[in-house]
Amino acid sequence: MSQSLPMIELASASNDRIGHSYDADKGKILARLKRIEGQVRGISRMVEEDKYCIDILTQVSAVIASTRSVGMLVLEDHIRGCVMNADPDQRESTLDELNLAIERFVRSVGN
Amino acid sequence: MSQSLPMIELASASNDRIGHSYDADKGKILARLKRIEGQVRGISRMVEEDKYCIDILTQVSAVIASTRSVGMLVLEDHIRGCVMNADPDQRESTLDELNLAIERFVRSVGN
Amino acid sequence: MSQSLPMIELASASNDRIGHSYDADKGKILARLKRIEGQVRGISRMVEEDKYCIDILTQVSAVIASTRSVGMLVLEDHIRGCVMNADPDQRESTLDELNLAIERFVRSVGN
Amino acid sequence: MSQSLPMIELASASNDRIGHSYDADKGKILARLKRIEGQVRGISRMVEEDKYCIDILTQVSAVIASTRSVGMLVLEDHIRGCVMNADPDQRESTLDELNLAIERFVRSVGN
Repeated sequence: MSQSLPMIELASASNDRIGHSYDADKGKILARLKRIEGQVRGISRMVEEDKYCIDILTQVSAVIASTRSVGMLVLEDHIRGCVMNADPDQRESTLDELNLAIERFVRSVGN
Repeated sequence: MSQSLPMIELASASNDRIGHSYDADKGKILARLKRIEGQVRGISRMVEEDKYCIDILTQVSAVIASTRSVGMLVLEDHIRGCVMNADPDQRESTLDELNLAIERFVRSVGN
Repeated sequence: MSQSLPMIELASASNDRIGHSYDADKGKILARLKRIEGQVRGISRMVEEDKYCIDILTQVSAVIASTRSVGMLVLEDHIRGCVMNADPDQRESTLDELNLAIERFVRSVGN
Repeated sequence: MSQSLPMIELASASNDRIGHSYDADKGKILARLKRIEGQVRGISRMVEEDKYCIDILTQVSAVIASTRSVGMLVLEDHIRGCVMNADPDQRESTLDELNLAIERFVRSVGN
């Protein structure tokens, strides 16, 4: 994730796929991530100030919901773009990869 | 969540309860929140650099898992501290509040 | 879900789509559903016999995990079959429908 | 607990704890489990009749939501009854057990 990593290495980190499908939603996704970052910082402040546990839990739940909604958006864009337009010879590997990602996404609640 | 808010107002925001039960885990919770903040910032960078959707989804799932684990820790401390030691006359309202918080926590995956 | 419902009505209940993509996994899905039915019946028996709450919760968690795994299988088959092979003029509505289904699936944890 | 089952066996199945706290909700819990059993049987029928994947997924999501709601009810009763009234010398082990159960419950979505 370091900004200095050359493009080619990052691509190789994901099975040589370089495409991405969220261009149209890029601004929306970045704005939501910015807000989530602020929410997390807000929780740190609450903990530092010894705020009530339940109020902290409420904010934690809000962060999870916001993050999941960003994930849902990226997933939708990915299916619409990358999966539907996959090269016929990459179709199977694209579907396997998608299924793993959905499972990981659904599972994230429990790890 | 502003640092300038007087204690009394913050307390009144949570039904006049002022206690908190996570003192022993405070350092651990703050360290984890710091790491989550970095994870979210890392995702923003990946989106800005047009990284592959699936790699972004993987990081989104990791943020959800980390955040949920912080929530679990706060919840455990709350039950051990605030709930078990609730004044007899606040017992019912403390339990109602706890149940709502668990439901909200479990539900956060879906909102 | 009644066995007497005519095919055409059931089809119209889902936007005139009649296909299904889980033929190869049909036996596996039915076997898992049978086992889930038995798990649920087992929980009823435990409640009738006043078994310990935590033991019941353990079984409830097991039913949720099994049911989610069936859902994951149907979802994968659906994407591989119905979505990837959708008629070009049904592509958008198929994707919208898929996204709603994934959201409902992920959300089911919270309702 | 069933009057015919020997006390010692039931106890040994759950770490020597014998209480249960859902008596007041017993009828409600059993009715909901009965309905869930019917829902699962309905899904089997849909699969046998080759119903549309998305309609099956919708029913799968409904089963998960109903089952989770039963789990929530048992959990609330357990905290109110068994946990709050635990013997002082069983307090720590009761809390550890509760935390494991909540984690398993929350995690069930992902296994």
